Amino acid sequence: MEYSARNQLKGKVTGVELGAVMANIKIEVEDPNTITAVITKESAERLGLAEGDDVVALIKSTEVIVGK
Amino acid sequence: MEYSARNQLKGKVTGVELGAVMANIKIEVEDPNTITAVITKESAERLGLAEGDDVVALIKSTEVIVGK
Amino acid sequence: MEYSARNQLKGKVTGVELGAVMANIKIEVEDPNTITAVITKESAERLGLAEGDDVVALIKSTEVIVGK
Amino acid sequence: MEYSARNQLKGKVTGVELGAVMANIKIEVEDPNTITAVITKESAERLGLAEGDDVVALIKSTEVIVGK
Amino acid sequence: MEYSARNQLKGKVTGVELGAVMANIKIEVEDPNTITAVITKESAERLGLAEGDDVVALIKSTEVIVGK
Amino acid sequence: MEYSARNQLKGKVTGVELGAVMANIKIEVEDPNTITAVITKESAERLGLAEGDDVVALIKSTEVIVGK
Repeated sequence: MEYSARNQLKGKVTGVELGAVMANIKIEVEDPNTITAVITKESAERLGLAEGDDVVALIKSTEVIVGK
Repeated sequence: MEYSARNQLKGKVTGVELGAVMANIKIEVEDPNTITAVITKESAERLGLAEGDDVVALIKSTEVIVGK
Repeated sequence: MEYSARNQLKGKVTGVELGAVMANIKIEVEDPNTITAVITKESAERLGLAEGDDVVALIKSTEVIVGK
Repeated sequence: MEYSARNQLKGKVTGVELGAVMANIKIEVEDPNTITAVITKESAERLGLAEGDDVVALIKSTEVIVGK
Repeated sequence: MEYSARNQLKGKVTGVELGAVMANIKIEVEDPNTITAVITKESAERLGLAEGDDVVALIKSTEVIVGK
Repeated sequence: MEYSARNQLKGKVTGVELGAVMANIKIEVEDPNTITAVITKESAERLGLAEGDDVVALIKSTEVIVGK
């Protein structure tokens, strides 16, 4: 299946921090850039996210703000 | 001023397409990755976005989906 | 690949309306519910969305507002 | 009052999980589909969300990703 | 019906600009602040938005970025 | 640096509540309006948000729902 979301950045998980409801995931997309994703704890557990995992950060284009 | 949004990717504008209300901005953040941002036409014009501009793509961490 | 976004509603495309930059996609997820998705025109064209297509509407849980 | 958000799915709350700041709400919109909504704990408490409540999941069309 | 979205700013419509798919709505929430909302053209037409209308801008708290 | 996000409301922090992963920030933008922002705890700490701080609430126009 292919998704309409244009922005798909490949990276590696470098940190997983679980809260009661949410989880903070660090994804190194390319040195020195790190993407922070906040997802539900249940999704983090369902995907079994752990350091070293190869993942994709998916971002819809309407969510991107441009600064100049 | 510093913003809470963690994800700030530096890049260069490689395309600006204006519609009646919205605008599609292409930002090459690092070869071969391109970020697509959809913003209002008025913001694209207010910032004077043009090919070659150095810009930042700002993305709130709650907007990022993780795929594995 | 599996995604963190929990909400994945299966449906059928019942309408595609293209603007200059954006596209309005109607997805019948289950009679009588219709989901409206606004995506970029380029994504609509890349996916070749047309009436009758079987698709999935993917929605991150942080984007859902609850009314009672 | 009527809202611009097009997507309004009626359902019943089947789960409420409170964290320190956020809350995870499960809404059965139609068997077998369940919508997960993450809202603030204070909103969950203000609405008094509990299992069995009839609710509406409200989703803006720009937040929907299409997969095909 | 009451919604989980905490941020509900009352204002008056001061501008409506229709594109093919999207619409840009200006809402003066309190002099000198103006909120810009981008919604689908069909929602703008369904609500019959016009200058002078009393409206509410509804914003989920997860969508707000803080700058300091 | 200037950002494409049109909606920038000035206010004062009136509450900071930290969870394990997320933080709930109250911003009084103008009596009697209060904006609630949910950001990551790490961003709240990085910005050193505390009651009395002068801040800006930044909201992309595609995130605003209009009620009439």
